[in-house]
Amino acid sequence: MIQRRSAFSLLLLLFSTSTITPAMAFDIMQPLPTDPVIPADNPQTPAKVSLGKHLYFDPRLSADKSLSCQSCHNLASGGDDDGALTQANGYNVNRSAPSIYNSANQTVQFWEGRVESLEDAFIDHLLDPNVLNQPSEKALEKRLNAISGYKEMYAKAFGNAEISAENTAKAVSAFVRTLKTPNSRFDHYMRGDKTQLSATEKRGMELFNERGCLACHFGSNFAGPAPGPSFKMGDGFYELFPNLIGSKYDKQYRLIDDVGRAAVTQQRDHVYLWRVPSLRNVALTAPYFHNGKVNDLAEAVRIMGRVQFNIPVSEQDVADIVAFLNSLTGEFPEITLPRLPDTAGRTLSE
Amino acid sequence: MIQRRSAFSLLLLLFSTSTITPAMAFDIMQPLPTDPVIPADNPQTPAKVSLGKHLYFDPRLSADKSLSCQSCHNLASGGDDDGALTQANGYNVNRSAPSIYNSANQTVQFWEGRVESLEDAFIDHLLDPNVLNQPSEKALEKRLNAISGYKEMYAKAFGNAEISAENTAKAVSAFVRTLKTPNSRFDHYMRGDKTQLSATEKRGMELFNERGCLACHFGSNFAGPAPGPSFKMGDGFYELFPNLIGSKYDKQYRLIDDVGRAAVTQQRDHVYLWRVPSLRNVALTAPYFHNGKVNDLAEAVRIMGRVQFNIPVSEQDVADIVAFLNSLTGEFPEITLPRLPDTAGRTLSE
Repeated sequence: MIQRRSAFSLLLLLFSTSTITPAMAFDIMQPLPTDPVIPADNPQTPAKVSLGKHLYFDPRLSADKSLSCQSCHNLASGGDDDGALTQANGYNVNRSAPSIYNSANQTVQFWEGRVESLEDAFIDHLLDPNVLNQPSEKALEKRLNAISGYKEMYAKAFGNAEISAENTAKAVSAFVRTLKTPNSRFDHYMRGDKTQLSATEKRGMELFNERGCLACHFGSNFAGPAPGPSFKMGDGFYELFPNLIGSKYDKQYRLIDDVGRAAVTQQRDHVYLWRVPSLRNVALTAPYFHNGKVNDLAEAVRIMGRVQFNIPVSEQDVADIVAFLNSLTGEFPEITLPRLPDTAGRTLSE
Repeated sequence: MIQRRSAFSLLLLLFSTSTITPAMAFDIMQPLPTDPVIPADNPQTPAKVSLGKHLYFDPRLSADKSLSCQSCHNLASGGDDDGALTQANGYNVNRSAPSIYNSANQTVQFWEGRVESLEDAFIDHLLDPNVLNQPSEKALEKRLNAISGYKEMYAKAFGNAEISAENTAKAVSAFVRTLKTPNSRFDHYMRGDKTQLSATEKRGMELFNERGCLACHFGSNFAGPAPGPSFKMGDGFYELFPNLIGSKYDKQYRLIDDVGRAAVTQQRDHVYLWRVPSLRNVALTAPYFHNGKVNDLAEAVRIMGRVQFNIPVSEQDVADIVAFLNSLTGEFPEITLPRLPDTAGRTLSE
C-alpha cells in the first residue's frame, strides 16, 4: 500500500489530522452562491448570454456537425452525458463528461484542471480531435461567418459582426455562467429550514464530516475552496485519487490507468492528482469518477472510504451518506430551446 | 432518356396534361391546418404529450445512450440534422433525416413511405441498427422500466406504470403531432393578407404552378393530397424521382443509387418511386433530396426542372422560385427543454 501526498494536499492534511466538529462543518459547508464570479474581460450581457445559448445547442460547432455542447453536457439531465458519448466506441475521451451545471464556480476546469477558465475550456474542446475536432480556430470562424443569422447576433453581443473563436468562447462561457442549480434541500437547510433534511440525511451529513469526506469536498460547491480573495480563479485545488493504491478497486474500476494532472504538468508528484470534483447534483451525474467506470453512488462511497481513508464503511453508513448526497440536488433552470440561425436554402458545404 | 410512370403517378398526369390556372392553384394550395389528424387509438392528452417530449429528448432510448430523436430531428433547427448524422461516417442511414415538423400531416412516413403511422415509424427507428439500435422492444422496455421517474409518467399517461414499447411509440407520436409550424407568410397570404408576399415571391409562386411543381407538391403540406375522407392515413402519394433518367445529375448527386420504394415492396415498377416530400420550411432543411447530396435549394430547383420535366429553368426563374419557397417557412413552437427522469445515484448498467 503506497500513500502519496503532494504539496497540493496540505489543506487536506490540515483537516484530516484533527476531527472536524459539527460546528466547524457548518462553517465549511455553504449554500450555493447566487452568482458565480464573472471575469472582468467578459461581462454578462443578455445579448451575449443569448448568443452563447444558441452556440451551446448548435452541432455546427463540431467538424462533422454531429456534436454540440449539449450532446455531452445535457442540460435536460445532470449536465453530463450519462457516460454515453465519453464511453462510446469511436470516441476516445476517456474522461467522463463532468456536469456543466455550477462549473462556473470551479476555479479550474477539466478533471485535472488543465485550463483556468471556461473560455479556455471551450477552445480546448474546440480543437480536441475527440470532441469538437475543428482543425483550427480559423476553421470555426470561417464556418460561423458563413451562417448569416449569426453575424447579427455577434454584432449585438460584441459590437462586431466579424466572428472570432475568442468571442465564441466568451459567449458560450457567459451562457454557462447562468447554469446554476440553487435551492437544494441542503441549501434550504443551511439557511435555517431544519425540516428540509430527514433524520437519515442529517446522520449522513454528520458521517460525511466525521469520516473525512468534508476535508476535500467542502465549500459551496463541495469541491474545495470557493473562489474569492484568497483563492482566485485559476488556483487549483487538487487531491490524490486514489490516495491509497493497492485495493481491489484499482483494477476493478481501472482507477490507476490515468495519471491525472501529471499528464499535463509532466511532474512526477502530480501523478493521480485530480481537481476535487463538485458533489452538487451528484445523484444525477452517474457514472462516477474521472473515468466514469462506477455506475452507482453507493459503490462510489464505498470506494472513497477504501481508497482515500482505508476505512471500511458499513452499508448503513453508505446508505446514510448517499441519502445526504441526494439532498444536494438543486433546482434546475427552465431552458427554452433556441432557434438556431440558418442561411436560408443552404447547408454548410465544407 | 427513360421516362417512367407508375400507377401512383396518375394524379400527376391529371395535373400535368393540362395547364393549371392561377385560380386552380389557389384551390390546390392551402394554408397549414391547425391540427393534424389524430388516430382514434391514440388521443392527445397533456400527460401523454409531456411524456412524449421527455422521451423525444432522452438519449437513453438508443442502445448506446448517445442518440435521442432530437439528435437527428433537431427541433432547434428545421427538425432535421443538417445532413450531419445521416451522412457521417459510422452511420449508414443513407437517407437524409426529413423534417419532423408537420410530419403528422403525412399519410405515410419515411422517404419511401414504408410505414403508415408515426407510431410505426418510432418502432422502425427503435429497432434499426443504424438508428436507435435496440435489439428488441423488450430491451427498451427493460431499460425504461429501470428509470424510476418514468413509471409515474407512464401511469399518468396510460393508467399503467408498466412501460411498453407500444405506449412509448404512442407517447412520442403524440408529442410529434404537436410539432407544427403554422403562419408562414404564404399562409397569411392565402388567408387574404396580400402584402405578405413580395412581387418576386408572387412571380415565384406562379412559376411554381406553371412549370408543374404544383402537380406533385400541392395540398396544405405541399406534398400531395392532405389526409381526409378520400385520402386516408396510410394511403401513400408517390412519384418518380428522377422521372427522367440520364442527366448529369444522376451521377453528380447519386440520384439513382437508391431504388426508393421498390426496396420495400420488391416491385419492379416501384423503382425510384418516393413519397412526395413536403416543402414546408424547405429553406431550413438543407441538404436536399432523399440522400441529402444537394447543399443548395437553388440547385435543387435546377435539378427538379431537369430530371422531372426536362426543361431548363433560367437563373432568374430559379431565384424567383427559391424566393417563393422561402415564404413557406412557418412559426416554430417554443419548446422548453424537459427535465429527464432519473434513478437517483445510478446510471443504467447494461
